[in-house]
Amino acid sequence: MMSHIPLPEGLPGIRGLFAFRPETAKPLCELAEVLLHDANTLTPAERELIATYVSSQNDCFYCQTSHGSIAAHHLHGDEDLVSQVKHDFESAAVSEKLKALLAVAGAVQRGGKNVRGEHVERARQQGATDAEIHDTVLIAAAFCMYNRYVDGLATWAPSDMAGFRERAALVARDGYLRHPRNVQQP
Amino acid sequence: MMSHIPLPEGLPGIRGLFAFRPETAKPLCELAEVLLHDANTLTPAERELIATYVSSQNDCFYCQTSHGSIAAHHLHGDEDLVSQVKHDFESAAVSEKLKALLAVAGAVQRGGKNVRGEHVERARQQGATDAEIHDTVLIAAAFCMYNRYVDGLATWAPSDMAGFRERAALVARDGYLRHPRNVQQP
Repeated sequence: MMSHIPLPEGLPGIRGLFAFRPETAKPLCELAEVLLHDANTLTPAERELIATYVSSQNDCFYCQTSHGSIAAHHLHGDEDLVSQVKHDFESAAVSEKLKALLAVAGAVQRGGKNVRGEHVERARQQGATDAEIHDTVLIAAAFCMYNRYVDGLATWAPSDMAGFRERAALVARDGYLRHPRNVQQP
Repeated sequence: MMSHIPLPEGLPGIRGLFAFRPETAKPLCELAEVLLHDANTLTPAERELIATYVSSQNDCFYCQTSHGSIAAHHLHGDEDLVSQVKHDFESAAVSEKLKALLAVAGAVQRGGKNVRGEHVERARQQGATDAEIHDTVLIAAAFCMYNRYVDGLATWAPSDMAGFRERAALVARDGYLRHPRNVQQP
């Protein structure tokens, strides 16, 4: 399938869109950097798992595979755990706190009004702070945007996992600000 | 109803969230500025109508009312036209091009994969450019984020229209970068 608008070749998923429109790439990359890579009481693995879970609920192949690979990198390569979280997080080998936050994220994915007091209460009882609840809601909401952006313009995604794993190692280390416009960055 | 996390008083909707987390407010405001306020071949009224329509489809009272008020301001106060677009844009007194772009936005709201070649072809036949199709998809996707952020944390919204109209006039003139963190801005 061709993308709905002509995009630079060789850049999969959101990366072709970043090259097409650098003005919007800048805040989109900065948002990902703050939410997923900057210092946070939630680990990078936890935040990437939330992003991956929401992307899988939205059936976005590119985002669930790219962020799933970054999550797995942070988890010393444990792709099985990422797969467990995507398919049935309540039975996955993750903390009770992360399960509660994934339930919040799943509610956000279905629509903001689906987040109930009970979801938030469960997260708080498992030790989640207000800031962590905030960031979970915004990560889930942001991936409802990134997923729609990537699939709404029918971008191309590679099918081999090797490329995803290779890029995941770079993003896990360097973060999200190395998009085409930021060539001057270290 | 109380918000799910404690937020500063007196700041409705997303503005309380911006004050709570200035680090994410920055890219979120910059994204709105580029998509809705910066120079574009789509008018500010057209872009605000797309934002308003998507917010109404997501049943987000704060966003559909705040952006609907900004759209109406750009349309010399024509709140009836905004209401027509929300309730049945195909019969509204807007251009065929905007109707085609609203149909694209509606597909994005339901999920990225709902955007079909026919949606994009219709927009192109009505004169929409690749950049306009791109921006329509990203505005729609971004409001699927903003709406979920505002409602997912159960923020407070005023019910009187006068406050929305007053603020709309300021935002229509000055744009989206005057959030609490940017006090130094002119």
